[in-house]
Amino acid sequence: MVAEIVPSEPLAEAPAAEASAAETLTDRAVRLHRGGKLEVRSTVPVRNANDLSLAYTPGVARVCTTIADTPARVHDLTWKGNTVAVVTDGSAVLGLGDIGPEASLPVMEGKALLFKEFAGVDAVPVCLDCRDVDDLVETVARMAPTFGGINLEDISAPRCFEVERRLQERLDIPVFHDDQHGTAVVVAASLVNALRLTGRRLDEVRVVVSGAGAAGVAVTKILQSMGVRHIVVMDRHGAIHAGRDGLTPVKSELAATTNQDLRRGGAHDILPDADVLIGVSGGVIPESAVATMAPDAVIFALANPDPEVHPDVAHRHAAVVATGRSDFPNQINNVLAFPGIFRGALDVRATNVSEGMKRAAAEALAGIVGEDLAADYIVPGPFDPRVAPAVAAAVADAARSEGIARL
Amino acid sequence: MVAEIVPSEPLAEAPAAEASAAETLTDRAVRLHRGGKLEVRSTVPVRNANDLSLAYTPGVARVCTTIADTPARVHDLTWKGNTVAVVTDGSAVLGLGDIGPEASLPVMEGKALLFKEFAGVDAVPVCLDCRDVDDLVETVARMAPTFGGINLEDISAPRCFEVERRLQERLDIPVFHDDQHGTAVVVAASLVNALRLTGRRLDEVRVVVSGAGAAGVAVTKILQSMGVRHIVVMDRHGAIHAGRDGLTPVKSELAATTNQDLRRGGAHDILPDADVLIGVSGGVIPESAVATMAPDAVIFALANPDPEVHPDVAHRHAAVVATGRSDFPNQINNVLAFPGIFRGALDVRATNVSEGMKRAAAEALAGIVGEDLAADYIVPGPFDPRVAPAVAAAVADAARSEGIARL
Repeated sequence: MVAEIVPSEPLAEAPAAEASAAETLTDRAVRLHRGGKLEVRSTVPVRNANDLSLAYTPGVARVCTTIADTPARVHDLTWKGNTVAVVTDGSAVLGLGDIGPEASLPVMEGKALLFKEFAGVDAVPVCLDCRDVDDLVETVARMAPTFGGINLEDISAPRCFEVERRLQERLDIPVFHDDQHGTAVVVAASLVNALRLTGRRLDEVRVVVSGAGAAGVAVTKILQSMGVRHIVVMDRHGAIHAGRDGLTPVKSELAATTNQDLRRGGAHDILPDADVLIGVSGGVIPESAVATMAPDAVIFALANPDPEVHPDVAHRHAAVVATGRSDFPNQINNVLAFPGIFRGALDVRATNVSEGMKRAAAEALAGIVGEDLAADYIVPGPFDPRVAPAVAAAVADAARSEGIARL
Repeated sequence: MVAEIVPSEPLAEAPAAEASAAETLTDRAVRLHRGGKLEVRSTVPVRNANDLSLAYTPGVARVCTTIADTPARVHDLTWKGNTVAVVTDGSAVLGLGDIGPEASLPVMEGKALLFKEFAGVDAVPVCLDCRDVDDLVETVARMAPTFGGINLEDISAPRCFEVERRLQERLDIPVFHDDQHGTAVVVAASLVNALRLTGRRLDEVRVVVSGAGAAGVAVTKILQSMGVRHIVVMDRHGAIHAGRDGLTPVKSELAATTNQDLRRGGAHDILPDADVLIGVSGGVIPESAVATMAPDAVIFALANPDPEVHPDVAHRHAAVVATGRSDFPNQINNVLAFPGIFRGALDVRATNVSEGMKRAAAEALAGIVGEDLAADYIVPGPFDPRVAPAVAAAVADAARSEGIARL
């Protein structure tokens, strides 16, 4: 399963001596993590009673009254306007699976740190000790007054879909499940550029999505909203089609909007003549199936640390290859999306992150590559400083044009 | 009502021209609060892919696994060990009352800022949109994996008592309602010194506590645990005694442990010959009643901004006077207690803040005054740098000696 698309190799280690390198990485990571990775700091002076009389009582009471009189001012008179909760239940963390809330905290701290470093967003990890959908929704809704946005993270499918949908209905701040939409936005941007490079159109290509979890569902939806008409989604039981029994509600919905030809079977049955393979499932897709894809195929094999198709294999059959790994070209990494998306949404005080805002983010991300487009450069690197500002601006514009911006 | 004991006067304004000074304070406070008062920052470098490989994937997965294998390590490998949630429902904020979660956020940010500045504790405001005791308990319990302690704040009585008690029973981290215990600790410290100055003993003095809310109840309990035997608590209906009808459960408990003489009536009936008056109620106690107190009386009039007995009046009848205001000597301010108490509790990973730890905090705080003790110096000032370390050390020692420290 792909819970997060980021490098999974011990980058800083020598490639040889794998066992001892792995041990060293653990030692170094544990040492770095002592005391955690985040702190909460004052942004105003607190040197003396005079400072306190403004930042705390009696001055603070005037600010409270201002907000009580004009509730919208909570966005600019508190940290709310720049603060996002990174919420998980620890049920689907990285490739580790269900490790619970405490053990997931280092990942949520890491996410918070990326929010700050890449987009100046203050983010607060919130690891919840509950699993029931109702409980998750209630808990997050109750704490929402404190935050300007909710980034859901590493909550297992299919619960993640309902948790997000119900929170979006209930709250007037953006609720965004990054495992779905962060991945989808970067995949969409990368695909736009891969098709530009290979001279194809979104509405013509035949796409196979391997994986029907959080990422697979969201990738499918964003591609459909961008005009892709031919998609077959497969899970561990093979192609999802309207005639298949025992589908979950989410997969039934997929079946209704994809695979109009009712193709059945596994990779060998549905990959022949496909233009695009997007792997967000883990597992292995055999080379014999990949070899049947259309000429100039596009393969995004995003599972970490082991892509569904190893890049060396993929390159034998495809014109463009991307992975989730930093040690190969074209790294499809969520960090290209979520910091800028929340930055843009917070900047205009959007009530939601709409499909249009996600598409705008994808288009902005794709646009950064510009004339440098090449088979090994379809998506910017994670440290490209142009990314977050461009994504934020596009997201803010889209929110304004859709009328869901409050600034 | 005294929700928080801190200066309530516009300290930085000239005393003349009150209306324009008040307006200026509002303007200045609002300006200072733009964008809020807190930020969340990384404490580790995030300059390049190498840094990310340790702070985020793949390194972070090793840290997650370490915690999954050895859950106690969450305290030292995440921010949990140094982080406290400042939780409110916005129902009893400062002197403003029930202003709701959003409008209370500036106060919670202020509290968080004090935690950091005075004791290096990272604190996160959490303003909850729920009021039911069950809902508050459930919500806080669910988010508890993220935090090393819970500071409850500005939750109205009597709900605050049950919320705290049930969370303490359920969680293995300190849960501390500051409006109760922060106030109680500083009052206890101040009283120890006031009695030392006036040559009296805790087990002999006659104490009247005016106010049976969060602060009044906690003050009564800590004084009893320190050996005070004669306490009469009064609320707006007069003295609380075992024969009174219609008492809440909390007041029934007070009635059972105080006022053994079953005194009845108001201030005029119960203040005669009292040695100590502790006002934590708001309202006015008439001078004619105060005048009947014993010689060398002690008066703590803590309501803000208007003490129950104005200091000028109190001084006519008492040897020692304290208030919650910074513009008079002997300011009884919670900031003398909560930062050091949580610092000490976190330092030894205490499972609770016990009565013994609170008493230790009070004694440490009283001890700082030492030989400088005087009628106008029974308690250190809020910016005395000796306070938080002394309180923290005493609290940590007490936790260790009670066997509730995990370090």
